[in-house]
Amino acid sequence: MKPVPTLDDVRAAARRLRGIATLTPLLPDRVLSERLDRPVFVKAECLQLTGSFKVRGAYNRIAALEPAERARGVVAFSSGNHAQGVAAAARMFAIPAAIVMPSDAPAAKIAGTRSWGAETVLYDRETQSRERLAAELAVARGATLIPSFDDPHVIAGQGTAGLEIAQQVAARGLVLGTVVTPLGGGGLASGLGLALQAAAPAARLYGVEPEGFDDARRSLAAGRIISNARKGGSRQDALLTPEISDLTFTLLKRLAAGLLTATDDEATAAQAHAAAVLKLIAEPGGAAALAAALHGKLPAGEGALVIVLSGGNA
Amino acid sequence: MKPVPTLDDVRAAARRLRGIATLTPLLPDRVLSERLDRPVFVKAECLQLTGSFKVRGAYNRIAALEPAERARGVVAFSSGNHAQGVAAAARMFAIPAAIVMPSDAPAAKIAGTRSWGAETVLYDRETQSRERLAAELAVARGATLIPSFDDPHVIAGQGTAGLEIAQQVAARGLVLGTVVTPLGGGGLASGLGLALQAAAPAARLYGVEPEGFDDARRSLAAGRIISNARKGGSRQDALLTPEISDLTFTLLKRLAAGLLTATDDEATAAQAHAAAVLKLIAEPGGAAALAAALHGKLPAGEGALVIVLSGGNA
Repeated sequence: MKPVPTLDDVRAAARRLRGIATLTPLLPDRVLSERLDRPVFVKAECLQLTGSFKVRGAYNRIAALEPAERARGVVAFSSGNHAQGVAAAARMFAIPAAIVMPSDAPAAKIAGTRSWGAETVLYDRETQSRERLAAELAVARGATLIPSFDDPHVIAGQGTAGLEIAQQVAARGLVLGTVVTPLGGGGLASGLGLALQAAAPAARLYGVEPEGFDDARRSLAAGRIISNARKGGSRQDALLTPEISDLTFTLLKRLAAGLLTATDDEATAAQAHAAAVLKLIAEPGGAAALAAALHGKLPAGEGALVIVLSGGNA
Repeated sequence: MKPVPTLDDVRAAARRLRGIATLTPLLPDRVLSERLDRPVFVKAECLQLTGSFKVRGAYNRIAALEPAERARGVVAFSSGNHAQGVAAAARMFAIPAAIVMPSDAPAAKIAGTRSWGAETVLYDRETQSRERLAAELAVARGATLIPSFDDPHVIAGQGTAGLEIAQQVAARGLVLGTVVTPLGGGGLASGLGLALQAAAPAARLYGVEPEGFDDARRSLAAGRIISNARKGGSRQDALLTPEISDLTFTLLKRLAAGLLTATDDEATAAQAHAAAVLKLIAEPGGAAALAAALHGKLPAGEGALVIVLSGGNA
C-alpha cells in the first residue's frame, strides 16, 4: 500500500495551493438551516477552478514530482473532473498532459479538458481498459500517471478544502458539527477527514455514494474492499468508481462516521435546490451530499452542518 | 434633493453590514480573461443573501431609522429584488414589512419575498400606481417607505460591494482598472462609484442598461433627467426603472466613465456563460454587465476588470 498521508501533508498542500486554488465560499443554505434547525452551509467547490475540487489534488501531486520527471508530462484517466483538474494543473506547470476519457463522457467535460490545452484520448467503456491505455501512454512518453484518488499527494490536496471549511466555520463563531461530502473513490472524503481531525476534532464526517454504487459503504461494513456490481448507469457520473483503494479504505475506516446513498432523482432535486436557493450550478454527483441532506438521510447532529458541493460540470 | 452620500457613509454602512451581508466571492472568468487579455473577475452578488445585492442597501436604510420609527415597520415597492432585500432586512430587525409588487413579477421573486415573512400587496402595472399604493400603506400603518435607490443610506449600503471589490483585487496583487455594473435606478452604480473614489481612484466605472431602456445614458448625455418611453417589455426586469433620481443623476454624472446598453438576447447569452463557465445562476438584468463585456461593448482598458453580476433570482 502507498504511504498513508497525514494532517501535515494536508497543511503542506495548503501552502502549495495558496494563490493557485480558489478559496471557495461557504454559503448559508437558509432553507436547510430552517428545516434542520441548525446552521447549514454549502462549501461551493463548483466555483473552484475547473468547476470541481479536483484541481487541488492534481496540482499538489504534480508539484511533488521531481522537475525532470515533471517536464516529461502527465497522463490521467477520468470521466471528466479529474481530467480537467490534471489538465489545468499541467498547464500551470507548462507541461504536456494526455487524458484518457470514456467516449460517452459528458461533452462539457471533454470540451473543458481540451480547453486547458490537454490532449484527450477517447476509449470505449465496454471494450477497452482505461488503466491499460493510460499505462501504455505513460510508458511511451515517459510521462507520470496522476491517479484520481489512490495517491497520498492527491488525497492531501483534496483535504485542503477541509482546512478551509474549519477556518470558515470558526470565523463565523460557530462550532463545526458535521461535514457531508459526495464520495466516489474516497479521495476527497479521506482528505477532509485528515484535515478535520485536528482543525475540528468534534466534527463527524459522512460520505454519500450513488444508490446502487455504494461499494465504499459495503466495504466498510464488510471490513474488506468490495466492488460495485455495475460500471455505469447512474447520472451521478463523477462518483462511479469501480471500487475504493487500500489507501482510501484505510483512511475512511478511521475517519468516516458513516456512509450514505442518494438516488439519481434525489440528486436531480438537489441540483434544482442548488439553482433556486444557492444560485449555483451543480452536477448530479456533485450534489449527492446535498441530496442526502435534503432528503432527511443525515443522522441528527448539533453545531454547523457543512455540505460539500463538489462539482458543477453539468 | 436628498443629501448626497459620501465615501464615509459607505464605510459606515460596511461596519453595519459586517456579519450581516455575505462577503461575496470575486471569481476569475478564464474565458473573458483570455479574450480580453487582462484579468477578468465576476463579483458574484447573486450569491448574496436574497440572491441580489439589494439587502445591503435595505439593511443599511432600516438600521439608520430611529428605534420607535423602525418598530412601526417598513413598506417598499419593487418588482422583486429590492422586495426581497427589504423583507430579509426587516426580518433581521424583527419588524413588519409590506411589499407592493406588480402582479406580473416573476413568481420566484414573489415567493422569495413571502419566504422572508413579508406581506405582499400585488397591483396591476397598467392601471395602478405603485407609488400611491405604497404611500397609502405607509400612512395607514405609520410605516416607513424604503426607496429602492433614491436614498443616501440605500446608495451607501450598495456601495459596500465596491469596498469589497477594491480589497479583493488588491489582495490578489492586481490594480483595479475597470468596474462594470448593471444599472436600473443607479443606486448600485452610484454606491460603487463612491467606494472606488478612494479605494481604487484609477478605476473607471461603467453602467449597463437594457437596450431601449437607456434613460440614464440619455440623461447624462442631455444634462437632464429623461424618462424611458416604455415601462415594460424587456426580460431584464430588474433594471426597468422609469427614470433615475436627482440623487443618482448627480452621482453618476460625477462618478461614471460611461454608460452602455445590452439587448435581451445578449443578456440571455450572458446567463448561459455564467452557468457554463462560472457555475452561477444569473437573472437577465443581473447579467447585463457581463453581457456588455462578452459582446465587446466595453472600451479597452488596463488592469483588472471586475464585472458585477448583481442578481440570480431567475
